[in-house]
Amino acid sequence: MNKSLFAQRMGRVTPSAIMELVKTTAAGDYISFASGLPDPCVFPQEALRTLADDVLTRDGRAALQYGAAEGYPPLRASVAEMLAQRGLVVTSNQVLITTGSQQALDLVARALLNPEDRVVIESPSYLAGIQLFDSAEVDYQTVPMDAEGMVVEGLPAALNGAKLLYTLPNFQNPTGLTLSATRRVELARRVVEAGVAIVEDDAYHDLRYDGERLPTVSSLEKNPWAIYTGSFSKVIAPGIRVGYLCGSPAVIERLTCLKQITDLHTGSLTQRIVYEYCARGFLEPGIQRLRDVYRARRDVMLAALQDHCSGVVTWSRPQGGMFIFCTLTEDRDASDLLQLALARGVVFVPGAGFHANGSGRNTFRLNFVSADPEKIRSGISILGDTIREWLA
Amino acid sequence: MNKSLFAQRMGRVTPSAIMELVKTTAAGDYISFASGLPDPCVFPQEALRTLADDVLTRDGRAALQYGAAEGYPPLRASVAEMLAQRGLVVTSNQVLITTGSQQALDLVARALLNPEDRVVIESPSYLAGIQLFDSAEVDYQTVPMDAEGMVVEGLPAALNGAKLLYTLPNFQNPTGLTLSATRRVELARRVVEAGVAIVEDDAYHDLRYDGERLPTVSSLEKNPWAIYTGSFSKVIAPGIRVGYLCGSPAVIERLTCLKQITDLHTGSLTQRIVYEYCARGFLEPGIQRLRDVYRARRDVMLAALQDHCSGVVTWSRPQGGMFIFCTLTEDRDASDLLQLALARGVVFVPGAGFHANGSGRNTFRLNFVSADPEKIRSGISILGDTIREWLA
Repeated sequence: MNKSLFAQRMGRVTPSAIMELVKTTAAGDYISFASGLPDPCVFPQEALRTLADDVLTRDGRAALQYGAAEGYPPLRASVAEMLAQRGLVVTSNQVLITTGSQQALDLVARALLNPEDRVVIESPSYLAGIQLFDSAEVDYQTVPMDAEGMVVEGLPAALNGAKLLYTLPNFQNPTGLTLSATRRVELARRVVEAGVAIVEDDAYHDLRYDGERLPTVSSLEKNPWAIYTGSFSKVIAPGIRVGYLCGSPAVIERLTCLKQITDLHTGSLTQRIVYEYCARGFLEPGIQRLRDVYRARRDVMLAALQDHCSGVVTWSRPQGGMFIFCTLTEDRDASDLLQLALARGVVFVPGAGFHANGSGRNTFRLNFVSADPEKIRSGISILGDTIREWLA
Repeated sequence: MNKSLFAQRMGRVTPSAIMELVKTTAAGDYISFASGLPDPCVFPQEALRTLADDVLTRDGRAALQYGAAEGYPPLRASVAEMLAQRGLVVTSNQVLITTGSQQALDLVARALLNPEDRVVIESPSYLAGIQLFDSAEVDYQTVPMDAEGMVVEGLPAALNGAKLLYTLPNFQNPTGLTLSATRRVELARRVVEAGVAIVEDDAYHDLRYDGERLPTVSSLEKNPWAIYTGSFSKVIAPGIRVGYLCGSPAVIERLTCLKQITDLHTGSLTQRIVYEYCARGFLEPGIQRLRDVYRARRDVMLAALQDHCSGVVTWSRPQGGMFIFCTLTEDRDASDLLQLALARGVVFVPGAGFHANGSGRNTFRLNFVSADPEKIRSGISILGDTIREWLA
């Protein structure tokens, strides 16, 4: 290649450790708690087949044609309606449809972040979020988490000189933790006071298995720099790549221009399929089914951890989402444990990669939705034995 | 909004003049030569309906699940095979599936360009390409075009100190011009000598209506920094958003990492539909049909220009693609003409926006594929009358 022609930002673009792990173990006969994948048995395959057929029969020309950068108008309106139920009173003009919520995050990062800007981020946080901010060449200010989510006490100092705060308030990936109601109020107030943009990544919003729904942070203060992102990946299916973001009209106008040069627009066909799925009332019963399946699996994993891992590991008790986060004693490295577990056919993700500040080597993430209950029980039992032998 | 939190690059992110024009005229009863849209009557609606149904019946779980950032393996292999027919001998690992070829261009710009890098670009060039390079905060070196495409004589000087050259060698948008065989050899050699990356945007490759297929520029020299982009938008349908790029293994590896943080991957369902479309032999006959329809429309527009615009305008005679480019005398501004034409119900795109160097005010672009032959004849007749009265 002789001289490299890559841009400076590429020095901070790295492969996803999770993707690599999922790939290397995909072929083998592993019990995997590693991926971020839902179980495809919950996908509404038959409904989507019918809707795809209807859309292509009735509206095929428009569904196959170029569309507006901001998205299919009826879908924008459906999303605005859905967001109203989350306390976010927005017009459909304040909704931008994106190619999954990863793209929503990408557009925000590109629109707001210069190199060396400071991003305030939970520790740990979403891996592909950290990767994205890395590629934007930012500096980090990390905020610790406890059982009530992001610890807000130190926020005024953390926000000082920052450009953007990134939070996943519901059933966070990777911890499964939820930001408490009191802290939401405090967080919303602090970012407005500091004049810092906030990105509220609520991809898991509807996957609540118990407890009351809490107000979205973005609905608690009038903030022109509050951007809320969501996705149909978790509640319909990820392979269709439809997500969204909402924000103030001025922010949406700029993000729409950016979206247009990025990929022109999100797929016309898939946007219409998603719209029909919502309009014909499939969404709510679909979410109910998901909740029942995933709640049961969470309970199976929590019970198995109690049976097999008590005393050697501590773990989070999520009210929703897809992940349980485990912590070993300070002196232990979860990537050493992974090697032993792999040899016995069990896969999980070591936690270091989720920490923007280099900590968390003694943590790891378990996905509780992608394996069936039998495999969960068996995998956690093997994991417990492995840890005990390793520590002994 | 008080203080702006936007990144510096947003100062160079602007709405698309074409999109705005298409939007304002969409409601009215216009004959439009303005858009970049194909005629939806050519979309293979019925075939795609059948394929969507088959994919969701047979392979629904995988088609709705997350996929690999680099794309669906069988589709990557199909693209590699297709590219072999264009002289590009690549393995499927050298193919990256993208969310339309606009995203291919976006990934390349992000991977290679630092602010103030110099980009060598044809004058005129693709509008959303210019918008994208603008957002990358680059400087331009423009290269003029004549009937044989980019004028290569001045290349050694133009390439001096440049990072990347962007070219659309076949039926360029907006001019419809094609780079001659001799110049392709010269261009391929000059970029290698200069150590400059080349992006060959070949979105219109298959839309050739007469003349011999010419070798792709990327196939003419061994160049680790040659990147070739293509799309299924023009030969199947744009609303499915599936494009691709190919390049050296090292470049593809880095672009795949970037793709992953950008939108994780291109839609699993739509990639499978496109794969089946190719695998079951729909592509070649579909392209033949397209060629027949579009060739006839080009001929109608060229004849109408001859009948109504001789002596007041000159125009390109494209061997393919979707566009004819018109030139008024030096002292005239096509945006003044547009106002008069709009009043008579005809829309086109003034050429200034296609020129990165501020020239081209006396040019305009006509799309010859989106209106039917009757409308083309009638629209060009109105346009001819308008120009004559304007000049008189």
